[in-house]
Amino acid sequence: MSGPALDGLVEALRRLPGVGLKSAQRMAYHLLQHDRPGAGELAQALRAAVERVRHCERCHTFSESAVCATCRDPARDASLLCVVETPADQLALERSGGYRGLYFVLMGRLSPLDGIGVRDIGLAQLLQRVGEASVVEVVVATSFTAEGEATAHAIAEALRARGVRSTRLARGVPVGSELEHVDLGTLAQALNDRR
Amino acid sequence: MSGPALDGLVEALRRLPGVGLKSAQRMAYHLLQHDRPGAGELAQALRAAVERVRHCERCHTFSESAVCATCRDPARDASLLCVVETPADQLALERSGGYRGLYFVLMGRLSPLDGIGVRDIGLAQLLQRVGEASVVEVVVATSFTAEGEATAHAIAEALRARGVRSTRLARGVPVGSELEHVDLGTLAQALNDRR
Ligand SMILES: [Zn+2]
Ligand SMILES: [Zn+2]
Repeated sequence: MSGPALDGLVEALRRLPGVGLKSAQRMAYHLLQHDRPGAGELAQALRAAVERVRHCERCHTFSESAVCATCRDPARDASLLCVVETPADQLALERSGGYRGLYFVLMGRLSPLDGIGVRDIGLAQLLQRVGEASVVEVVVATSFTAEGEATAHAIAEALRARGVRSTRLARGVPVGSELEHVDLGTLAQALNDRR
Repeated sequence: MSGPALDGLVEALRRLPGVGLKSAQRMAYHLLQHDRPGAGELAQALRAAVERVRHCERCHTFSESAVCATCRDPARDASLLCVVETPADQLALERSGGYRGLYFVLMGRLSPLDGIGVRDIGLAQLLQRVGEASVVEVVVATSFTAEGEATAHAIAEALRARGVRSTRLARGVPVGSELEHVDLGTLAQALNDRR
């Protein structure tokens, strides 16, 4: 009963995280039956985002200008730099309300099995960022997974060699969980208890 | 930390059924961080579907040609016509494997509170379709909700006045549930037991 354009839409929707075949079909049917303007707007929004959303020159988070609003905010404490794996992790920390410093977003985390080493996650850029600015403390907020811990270890070693103080979010964040999914109170406390 | 293009993408994704703010953010971040080609393909697939997916002239289901593949299939039993509320309901019945007749897809269901009457759901087109073809029995497979039952009642009355036999899916489909979400075995049995 379907055709190539409808099948293609279902396939494309399945590339979204957390969307299986049935969800993708329901989404496609909903858009075609009840919200064709919404489909057009989503197509337009996707194109605009792919075109305009780049990475901040200073912290590498998503930004539509050369330097993001957080990096440009004079109310931020420039002596503190928090290292996260993804913009989603940064957003989770922002929402916790417990942090007023700046950020550095890695390009993922170490994963030797996938051939992803310190070079690939942007350690050199992090060290350059720490070197050029008034950073007193680096809060390493990578995930508390094996790969996140390995990343944190590599960063802490590199910073120690340069005489820069580094801390880690306090225990309190459940081991093995993704930062993005931790509740905000736990995140706020973990920021306070950083060691 | 975000900008208008990223915010716009999150807003557009929230229009998808079952997608809240957090899911939309996760989807947007995933596409921008890990799957920009996927974002472009989804935009293209949305445009293609909106442009090419129309409704079959005979049964009103989604079709990319004037008459859909089901209506054109000579192996289908043209003496049986199954009336459903949506293409999703049609797909669910097809998957049950219990039906080899043709379909007629209504434009929704009766909803007096929303001002949706028999005219709006396509009853006239259904009667025309029944009149012009070799239809012996109409299987009314609207949902077993108050509105779906009211729709079924209106259809059965109109068909009786024209001397056309109509049946309803057997009890067995849980009352109050949406057809789309019923398990396939129950659907197949309900088709067999239609009365
Ligand atoms: Zn920045
Ligand atoms: Zn058709």
